[in-house]
Amino acid sequence: MRNIKVVLEYEGTAYSGFQVQTNAKTIQEQVEVALKELTGENIRIVGSGRTDAGVHARGQVISFFTNSRIPADRFAPALNSCLPADIRALESAEAAQDFHARFSAREKTYRYLILNRRAPSALLRNLAYWIPERLDIKAMDLCAEELVGTHDFRAFMSTGSLVKTTVRTVIESRVQRLGDEGLVEFRITANGFLYNMVRIMAGTLIQIGLRRLDPGVIRQMLETGNRDLGGPTAPARGLYLESVRY
Amino acid sequence: MRNIKVVLEYEGTAYSGFQVQTNAKTIQEQVEVALKELTGENIRIVGSGRTDAGVHARGQVISFFTNSRIPADRFAPALNSCLPADIRALESAEAAQDFHARFSAREKTYRYLILNRRAPSALLRNLAYWIPERLDIKAMDLCAEELVGTHDFRAFMSTGSLVKTTVRTVIESRVQRLGDEGLVEFRITANGFLYNMVRIMAGTLIQIGLRRLDPGVIRQMLETGNRDLGGPTAPARGLYLESVRY
Repeated sequence: MRNIKVVLEYEGTAYSGFQVQTNAKTIQEQVEVALKELTGENIRIVGSGRTDAGVHARGQVISFFTNSRIPADRFAPALNSCLPADIRALESAEAAQDFHARFSAREKTYRYLILNRRAPSALLRNLAYWIPERLDIKAMDLCAEELVGTHDFRAFMSTGSLVKTTVRTVIESRVQRLGDEGLVEFRITANGFLYNMVRIMAGTLIQIGLRRLDPGVIRQMLETGNRDLGGPTAPARGLYLESVRY
Repeated sequence: MRNIKVVLEYEGTAYSGFQVQTNAKTIQEQVEVALKELTGENIRIVGSGRTDAGVHARGQVISFFTNSRIPADRFAPALNSCLPADIRALESAEAAQDFHARFSAREKTYRYLILNRRAPSALLRNLAYWIPERLDIKAMDLCAEELVGTHDFRAFMSTGSLVKTTVRTVIESRVQRLGDEGLVEFRITANGFLYNMVRIMAGTLIQIGLRRLDPGVIRQMLETGNRDLGGPTAPARGLYLESVRY
């Protein structure tokens, strides 16, 4: 069987996340239904990771095995003829037999998008988290930089997660304005992410930007592992899985 | 009665345009229902212009008369508590008695957003017009500049429109890339616009960018008034009413 890799972009608003669940509309289910339509096969796809309900992706990677004779690069356009418009296949290619979208991933990049302006936005209502009070972007960026390196990130994980280790290596972490219309981006690259890690980081950086939390809180969280020191988990609609490196 | 001016942002996707119609969901209707809820009055609003089905606004201006005692600057947040999330009031203020959102308008700016990249986008599916073939942006910008000035724009008007004159003055007209992810913007400011004018211009500039129409076609259209020389009317989803000056 051939192993096919596909890069997906999706708007998560209408979905209960990536992973298949009973009685819930998910990205995985939509893609598997589309693949069934294309190939006639019952294909189980693997994603680079699960995105939660309402979370978006600009470069989610999936892989799956198939006996279909569709040329590898034609899977993307063929899928787009079957998928709903809020899920698009950007590209597709044949992968090595041992390629696994999740286990082969070496680094991932997420971004969290904030709209920091007085008035709310109709156009970005599902695509960014609106913060009307002025954010101190400089302070947020300085604190974001403190996340870089190999640390125990258990203070940036929602409780109830089962993982062997909470140590991860963050390669890049920064906060910057995008253009001059109030968009602010928190972008982070790491060798792996804990459950809700980016949304807890974003929520904590926002409280620092609002001067409701001391800039020292990031270091304290890394040192003590105490989730309660941080800000609330930021809402799903600002989060994007940007890309996965293999 | 007080005359109130409100600036609106909306995503036009779910609406049959701005103007009230029987058996159709429109922006005007939604705002008038919200104002009824807020004031108890049957208020008729006036917009700076009608936007068509699927067309967006980032700075549509409306005005209306009311006896309500709501402070003028509170109308925006109060409206937002009643309006659907795809329509937002950005700001509100008291206007002079003779202010009229449509007749007092001196200039308007529209933009037409194109996504020029190989793969379609899930996130921008309703917010930009996807052109997968590479566009010659330089050629488009040079042609866009030829629209500047006072001209008879009847070649850039859909038939069936009833207007006294088809002469308009274009103050600014340009095509440029926005960022490095394939977004291209056609931005135009004029003292007034004919029906479908921006969408016909955008459709023609796109054909020039694809080298399917000669760059001389803009001048020919201005000289001959012949609509048939231009490209097809570009779809509504790329069009935004950006701002109105008074």
